[in-house]
Amino acid sequence: MSGHATNLRVKLPLLCTLLQLATVLLFAFFVQYDSQTSPRLWHEEVQLHSKKPLDHDFYPRYPSFQDVHVMVFLGFGFLMTFLKRYSFGGVAFNFLIAAFALQWSILIQGFFHTFHDGKIHVGIESMINADFCAGSVLISFGALLGKTSPVQLLLMAVLEVTFFGINEYILLSLLQVKDAGGSMTIHTFGAYFGLMVSRVLFRPHLDKSRQREGSTYHSDLFAMIGMLFLWVFWPSFNSAVTAHGDDQQRTVMNTYFSLASSTLSTFAISALVNRGGQLDMVHIQNAALAGGVIVGTSAEMALTPFGALIAGCVAGLVATLGFKFLTPILAAKLKIQDTCGIHNLHGLPGMLGALLGALVAALATPDAYGEGMADIFPLVASGQRSSTQQSLFQLLGLLVSLGMAMVGGILVGAILRMQSLAMPPDALCFEDQIYWEVPEEHHDGFQVVEALSTEEADKATQA
Amino acid sequence: MSGHATNLRVKLPLLCTLLQLATVLLFAFFVQYDSQTSPRLWHEEVQLHSKKPLDHDFYPRYPSFQDVHVMVFLGFGFLMTFLKRYSFGGVAFNFLIAAFALQWSILIQGFFHTFHDGKIHVGIESMINADFCAGSVLISFGALLGKTSPVQLLLMAVLEVTFFGINEYILLSLLQVKDAGGSMTIHTFGAYFGLMVSRVLFRPHLDKSRQREGSTYHSDLFAMIGMLFLWVFWPSFNSAVTAHGDDQQRTVMNTYFSLASSTLSTFAISALVNRGGQLDMVHIQNAALAGGVIVGTSAEMALTPFGALIAGCVAGLVATLGFKFLTPILAAKLKIQDTCGIHNLHGLPGMLGALLGALVAALATPDAYGEGMADIFPLVASGQRSSTQQSLFQLLGLLVSLGMAMVGGILVGAILRMQSLAMPPDALCFEDQIYWEVPEEHHDGFQVVEALSTEEADKATQA
Amino acid sequence: MSGHATNLRVKLPLLCTLLQLATVLLFAFFVQYDSQTSPRLWHEEVQLHSKKPLDHDFYPRYPSFQDVHVMVFLGFGFLMTFLKRYSFGGVAFNFLIAAFALQWSILIQGFFHTFHDGKIHVGIESMINADFCAGSVLISFGALLGKTSPVQLLLMAVLEVTFFGINEYILLSLLQVKDAGGSMTIHTFGAYFGLMVSRVLFRPHLDKSRQREGSTYHSDLFAMIGMLFLWVFWPSFNSAVTAHGDDQQRTVMNTYFSLASSTLSTFAISALVNRGGQLDMVHIQNAALAGGVIVGTSAEMALTPFGALIAGCVAGLVATLGFKFLTPILAAKLKIQDTCGIHNLHGLPGMLGALLGALVAALATPDAYGEGMADIFPLVASGQRSSTQQSLFQLLGLLVSLGMAMVGGILVGAILRMQSLAMPPDALCFEDQIYWEVPEEHHDGFQVVEALSTEEADKATQA
Repeated sequence: MSGHATNLRVKLPLLCTLLQLATVLLFAFFVQYDSQTSPRLWHEEVQLHSKKPLDHDFYPRYPSFQDVHVMVFLGFGFLMTFLKRYSFGGVAFNFLIAAFALQWSILIQGFFHTFHDGKIHVGIESMINADFCAGSVLISFGALLGKTSPVQLLLMAVLEVTFFGINEYILLSLLQVKDAGGSMTIHTFGAYFGLMVSRVLFRPHLDKSRQREGSTYHSDLFAMIGMLFLWVFWPSFNSAVTAHGDDQQRTVMNTYFSLASSTLSTFAISALVNRGGQLDMVHIQNAALAGGVIVGTSAEMALTPFGALIAGCVAGLVATLGFKFLTPILAAKLKIQDTCGIHNLHGLPGMLGALLGALVAALATPDAYGEGMADIFPLVASGQRSSTQQSLFQLLGLLVSLGMAMVGGILVGAILRMQSLAMPPDALCFEDQIYWEVPEEHHDGFQVVEALSTEEADKATQA
Repeated sequence: MSGHATNLRVKLPLLCTLLQLATVLLFAFFVQYDSQTSPRLWHEEVQLHSKKPLDHDFYPRYPSFQDVHVMVFLGFGFLMTFLKRYSFGGVAFNFLIAAFALQWSILIQGFFHTFHDGKIHVGIESMINADFCAGSVLISFGALLGKTSPVQLLLMAVLEVTFFGINEYILLSLLQVKDAGGSMTIHTFGAYFGLMVSRVLFRPHLDKSRQREGSTYHSDLFAMIGMLFLWVFWPSFNSAVTAHGDDQQRTVMNTYFSLASSTLSTFAISALVNRGGQLDMVHIQNAALAGGVIVGTSAEMALTPFGALIAGCVAGLVATLGFKFLTPILAAKLKIQDTCGIHNLHGLPGMLGALLGALVAALATPDAYGEGMADIFPLVASGQRSSTQQSLFQLLGLLVSLGMAMVGGILVGAILRMQSLAMPPDALCFEDQIYWEVPEEHHDGFQVVEALSTEEADKATQA
Repeated sequence: MSGHATNLRVKLPLLCTLLQLATVLLFAFFVQYDSQTSPRLWHEEVQLHSKKPLDHDFYPRYPSFQDVHVMVFLGFGFLMTFLKRYSFGGVAFNFLIAAFALQWSILIQGFFHTFHDGKIHVGIESMINADFCAGSVLISFGALLGKTSPVQLLLMAVLEVTFFGINEYILLSLLQVKDAGGSMTIHTFGAYFGLMVSRVLFRPHLDKSRQREGSTYHSDLFAMIGMLFLWVFWPSFNSAVTAHGDDQQRTVMNTYFSLASSTLSTFAISALVNRGGQLDMVHIQNAALAGGVIVGTSAEMALTPFGALIAGCVAGLVATLGFKFLTPILAAKLKIQDTCGIHNLHGLPGMLGALLGALVAALATPDAYGEGMADIFPLVASGQRSSTQQSLFQLLGLLVSLGMAMVGGILVGAILRMQSLAMPPDALCFEDQIYWEVPEEHHDGFQVVEALSTEEADKATQA
């Protein structure tokens, strides 16, 4: 297949080398250990403030970081193995773009948040935030799964990470919006960015690959590995960068409750919407996670256990109905082909999460928060904003995120349409063989080459 | 299949809605953040006692909680995927009932342990204990795997969680028994409860589904994922709620040693009892875990590394022999059909663990424990009990657990025999297709419908 | 098959019993809780130094331990499931030898490092180090995968753990070499030990089993589970026993960066070296991990983020090229059959890691390290060595490791060649059926027995 347009032999090494070289150079000039990572600086700090080694911020943050790291690489990765003939691409392109996105994000986020004295200072929180940003890119990847080449995906990652960094800076630093678990900055942004890219890359003849756009019994089980790691570690995701003490504890607990109730409503709706009363693995794999997304903004606030349960119920309900009724409409009417249904898992619950965050912020009273107000709503605690004003800023944050995601997605989609980015033809979507050496058992290489040739003949005819 | 008795379309949504609604209402009235989770209360505590944010109990508990959470959802879940045509049901019904059981357990356990001023106060330990209780229900599920509908399982969960809460209260609060890793409260209770339910639901014609009651090469590998996560995180399970410092450390180490030696004895016995000298995956997947169960009571005590090794050896030996010789007898003579062999993994090693705990308690001397006695045996430390008395109370705890489990199990079994709980017919046990949309490759829908009709015809004839 | 030489029925139980009995006895005489694990001693320490329970070393160490534990049992275990008919053996023999190796290593390492007053004192660090040692044995196992019996592997484990302990003692205690992540003590040692054993056990007729020496689509996905857990938790591996505070933080960060860049270079080179431009799962599963190995020595030092990225790039490059070009040469010219390609993942990157460590040590200045020098290079900080001298000792450490590994490997290989260790014949390598009850679907037992008989007939003829 060496002559085909989907051949990665030159394009992928070239792009990887360029990107990695640029990253290495920028790291060489700009990135250095922060004061908790440098041996000299930390020991100076220890002596100056008579600290003990275990007062290091590494200890309360690292377990959460590791959970998030598992979610990004194992969780998202295996969630995307559900397609019967695209499991290699699902887990491994997830791996590739996450491994690049986190490096690039260290630069972009570092430039916006920890740049001083001409240097980006990196520590444990930089790593968590870089993983968060990678997660957002992976959400977008979900809409494009099986329809894009790794070359396109890496290109998307460079640009999306950059847009993500700008958007996050506007929300968190300029608008002073709270969004610890990223309902707006990660989920809403990643989802609508990806959906817009998919819209621009719309394939009218995708039905040529319809026979591959399904799962097998065991590919669904592989996807459950990813799903369950996301579900189990989501409390760590939402709490990884909140303030220490009660904030982390509360965020964890709210997320725990919300996920539990979204699981029940997902099972309930899944059985209800199927004529035969049978459950659908697609719903379980995705909608049961919506409980984590919907409390992304509000989990660190005083949502109450009761509020978390209600939120989760709604999330599971909306997401499952979305898979059943909305995804087909998106594809048919709006020309948005959303392979993993990210609109249901991240888009809608992300927006609902932003709205819920605005609601809970509006209800914040000094009586409920006490001295803890300063950790969650510092501007309200210091009297610079009322609760209502904070709430309005939260809503503004949602609008900005949506706008940035859509503009960014359309722009990036247009770039990804360029020739020579190794995009698969319509008849060979959801097919590992064009990018992977696949073990013999699955091999029908001849047909693939055949299909590629036919496709190109078609194109020649059309041109 | 919409007309069949196993159709979930009405029953499952109805039960889920009822249970979730009840939970939401009870949470609304009774559940609130404890003093470490509420922003106001925690900050008052910090100021009053000049604490630092990292003095929060979240930090020593959360990593263990996450490990236990992985065990409950991934560990138990994937362990139950070993059946060739019931892997969806194994992992996903595990997910459903655990997600409900933990919510219900927050209420039940909260009512018994953290109820004051008319409210249940929830914090990080509530979450760990709720997961423990869910684990106990999942053990019972193991005996019923493939033979019960999700409607039955949810109903069982409501009732079993309630019985669990009462039993745990009697043991830990009234009898002041020590059982940090739950040899009695979790394993013995869950096992004999499930075995009794299975006894009441005995199916004389289960051989009609015999051809599905096996594994495939890859379903055995999926089960190994679950098994190994249980094995690796078991030290966290046993130590998650012990006292801080030396207690958590010692519990972890004893469990680590016990599991290592139970692995060796499992491999040894597995090869020995097979005529061809071949190893059996069923033994490896289950018996090698018995080392964690057998030290559930004693791991926090001064068991010594040597004692832990011995305990583990015995556990692996007993469990493997149980699979080979006892499981067939249980089914044939006692009419107890135990799909996963929970009697071998949780029942026998749980009882042995209770006895071992009583033994180690009896041997407790001030010389060995020093000031640490107060953390492990507070009543012995304060002179209210002698070591021997503590030991006798431990034995009494085992008897109570056994009794409660059996009575509860029989009662619940009787309830689950009700018509209209969507129970699968004998000829369609261990079969995902009756409850799940199964990808085509595995689809022989016609036969299933056929079988259902035949089954009902049979019933009609019998009636 | 009971009469065949590969029958485990007597041999495996016998060896397991002997080894476990010896371990139990040695534990009974020599192993006791250290002062942080004993209830009496820790509480005395708490009172003497007015410590708080959370000052216990368990808290900063345990999360890393659990990550390492996952790597050893899940990570290595599933990485070895890639063979189409040896996945049971891959994951389960990994489990067996790790469960034994950690017990034996508690004795050997304990004897060298925490032996006083006639007792080995064990605590949380003993457990981490025992897991590390088990990891080294599992690396060696990688070269032998599918070609050795569990009897041989257990025997290798006893001896390799012993050699490992001696080698580690020479490096860390006598030469005062730094090697927190084990580039030398774990990776280089494990790799060249295993390669030498494989050399001695060279099979000229291994091509008789060539048809089984490949993967299937799903066995490659199982291997990706193991791979990704190794990748995600490697920062914990390298930092698990470094000094607290900045050291753990820095080690984690350097490893994180190195792995990210080794992933990009692996994908780039994998596409480049394939004529069709297709990616190769073998490379992704292995070479992308080399970034963790290459910083095993230097990650705790002031490697800088930039240095970590460069190191990772080189590691991915070297490892991928190794798989493509070196592995075939090793087999053909040097008669070293390396099933998993451990030379590429652990051998070469381990040696490069040792050299990189020596380089970074040579560049250590008081200006860069400040008071932190004492944690990393205590002899340099105290003036007993110059940086250059430390660097030379690091190089000496590499040579000692290589020498010990090779001598040990040859010796052990010679022992493993003994008759009656149940070694599989050339025509039945990479085949689970000789040691496992395999579910029917995969069963062609007749052929296996046939093959065994033919093999033995062949042998009889040759003899």
